Amino acid sequence: MDNPSAIITLTTDFGLRDPYVGQLKGALLKGCPACILIDLTHAVPPWDVMTAAFTIRTSYACFPAGAIHLIVVDPGVGTLRPILVAAGDGHFFVAPDNGILSLLAVDRKIETIHRVERPDFFPATVSPTFHGRDVMAPVAAALARGGNPAEFGPSVALQNIRMVQVPPVVAEAGCLRGQVQRIDHFGNVRTTIRAGRFGFDGASFVCLDIKGRRISRLTATYDEVDAGSLLVLVDSDGYFEIAANRANAAEIIDCAPGDGVIVHLAGKASP
Amino acid sequence: MDNPSAIITLTTDFGLRDPYVGQLKGALLKGCPACILIDLTHAVPPWDVMTAAFTIRTSYACFPAGAIHLIVVDPGVGTLRPILVAAGDGHFFVAPDNGILSLLAVDRKIETIHRVERPDFFPATVSPTFHGRDVMAPVAAALARGGNPAEFGPSVALQNIRMVQVPPVVAEAGCLRGQVQRIDHFGNVRTTIRAGRFGFDGASFVCLDIKGRRISRLTATYDEVDAGSLLVLVDSDGYFEIAANRANAAEIIDCAPGDGVIVHLAGKASP
Amino acid sequence: MDNPSAIITLTTDFGLRDPYVGQLKGALLKGCPACILIDLTHAVPPWDVMTAAFTIRTSYACFPAGAIHLIVVDPGVGTLRPILVAAGDGHFFVAPDNGILSLLAVDRKIETIHRVERPDFFPATVSPTFHGRDVMAPVAAALARGGNPAEFGPSVALQNIRMVQVPPVVAEAGCLRGQVQRIDHFGNVRTTIRAGRFGFDGASFVCLDIKGRRISRLTATYDEVDAGSLLVLVDSDGYFEIAANRANAAEIIDCAPGDGVIVHLAGKASP
Repeated sequence: MDNPSAIITLTTDFGLRDPYVGQLKGALLKGCPACILIDLTHAVPPWDVMTAAFTIRTSYACFPAGAIHLIVVDPGVGTLRPILVAAGDGHFFVAPDNGILSLLAVDRKIETIHRVERPDFFPATVSPTFHGRDVMAPVAAALARGGNPAEFGPSVALQNIRMVQVPPVVAEAGCLRGQVQRIDHFGNVRTTIRAGRFGFDGASFVCLDIKGRRISRLTATYDEVDAGSLLVLVDSDGYFEIAANRANAAEIIDCAPGDGVIVHLAGKASP
Repeated sequence: MDNPSAIITLTTDFGLRDPYVGQLKGALLKGCPACILIDLTHAVPPWDVMTAAFTIRTSYACFPAGAIHLIVVDPGVGTLRPILVAAGDGHFFVAPDNGILSLLAVDRKIETIHRVERPDFFPATVSPTFHGRDVMAPVAAALARGGNPAEFGPSVALQNIRMVQVPPVVAEAGCLRGQVQRIDHFGNVRTTIRAGRFGFDGASFVCLDIKGRRISRLTATYDEVDAGSLLVLVDSDGYFEIAANRANAAEIIDCAPGDGVIVHLAGKASP
Repeated sequence: MDNPSAIITLTTDFGLRDPYVGQLKGALLKGCPACILIDLTHAVPPWDVMTAAFTIRTSYACFPAGAIHLIVVDPGVGTLRPILVAAGDGHFFVAPDNGILSLLAVDRKIETIHRVERPDFFPATVSPTFHGRDVMAPVAAALARGGNPAEFGPSVALQNIRMVQVPPVVAEAGCLRGQVQRIDHFGNVRTTIRAGRFGFDGASFVCLDIKGRRISRLTATYDEVDAGSLLVLVDSDGYFEIAANRANAAEIIDCAPGDGVIVHLAGKASP
């Protein structure tokens, strides 16, 4: 496989204040001058592996097959936690073994995993605090040049990678119990409850409860209610979302990631 | 026209916290793997069509001819508002029909407009809340591959697109009355009053009034007054700007978008 | 030298709110359509030449040789301050003559400097407030197309460029006295004291004092202490850094750039 203009996406908790993202890109370009670098997000909250896991789950398939996804949220940088190269669904993923890949694993999207152990990826010049730049970027660049995941080190069984504890969505009689997953830039409240997972077809939605409020209006789009009014819809990633038309729903509701959400359904909702 | 390395600029209100910009770029790369993606800004205030209109007016011509400008500020996403492909001045513009293109229209920069109606751009998988990713990006990518705007749907007359209500600049005897358009990152106060439009030549400037302050110093550059002092200049987009040398003028003046600005001129100022 | 896919990095104080970075990139693409544009950072504090100088010192070598580094932090824009093209260590640097290049000069990384005086880089259409877009970007693009620095104007001796006053690191008997250089996105406190400069080998570290606190724990990585505990390490750019495991050290310490830092060493520390 020769792939000189491979796409490499970047997902980190580095923010954009410092030159860290730029340094990471320099390392990628050193390894593969013709790669195409795309920022997925650098605003994962610091050290928040679960948000990184959700981000890559919902976004990787937006890119063409063959894309390499480098995800650096790495509070254990420099310690013995391995660095992994995973492949599946036509995509590649490079990340520390700390749970980042666990929602891809849950979704059965991962076909192979290898642990990076080849000594030339760990020269003496590696900074113990920036494996993203000094190890993972060279690995991603080697993949972009056409490298085979098996070249980097031994195979790892899926059940042996670390998993994040994602609060489960619980299906009870007549309702689904989940949580607020994140608040987006618009103040839209993205939940952990995927609409499609339970065969949801819209007709069965009754109402949604969050922080003592009950929202009964299910719409397809934002602009179907009055400006400022709350609504529920199925968002562009397939999850239930609480929003307000041209207003900040999270501020109206005063909610935060982790708050409980209940979706009441008319039909049966067993998983 | 074959344009495999076409430039596509992106202007949105998505912010950079979420993976939405990355997902948009993934869709663009799926449609045109060799396109060059440039962020113009993703910090248009949420749903603020007027700021998007000013942004594209002042920035498109900085790019080479043939560039495709994708502008996604779309509070009506998923409703019946059309998606437009406009062409003019050697550039292409893809945006919802909500006023984004209206300042280009005022400037007589638009030559043709087509409404996207071709069914293959509206497959069943389109998310009703993310037409930027699922409709507009594929359209922009098709243009980048060499597509002709007429392929996407019927022609639309310029007078039939939606216009934003931009507060007019009023020329009275001896003065021009406008508004604060936006506050930039440095605290520079960008007004709606274009210096060149009224044949302004600098010599006729007398003073500028804003929020009870009168500023008489017109300079060419920031560093001509003492640090912290206020000044007026013609900014890099051709508008009157109120600034302070190495300080935040908007904080000093305590002003915001929409506040009134009066430029007093010595000569006559009828439009 | 023909270098059609040259890398151009961008370091500015423009922020990402306004379309200024996009306009700069448009100008670069007009001059060199095939260049590869990489954001190093746009979050240098407004007009902060010293931070820009540290940023380029610590980051340029992360990029492949032949890269062109455009640094636009330019409070004197439009005045008589020259624009410089420097070359050294296989890299090129374009910046105003205001001190941005001074830490590269201190490090003896600069081999040649030329002042941009060629009249065609100063057409009548240059905005006096945006030389980044209208002068420096065309210069960087001309370098990217294979231009020779000597083409732009006369040679300048290294001792004639402007230098920023970086507070010196002072080596006394048993200690090094420096400052907080910047606080990063994670709250890590980056100091002005480079570990390697004084032959530091870790064994000689005794403790670090900052704002009345004494930190004795020197580690290689963040995850070696309890969550929330303070530590000192040598950061990925080679400087002493004060951090906390999965917590914001700057908030814990309540420190800011410019605050004093003392590193106590067991051995001798004369420079």
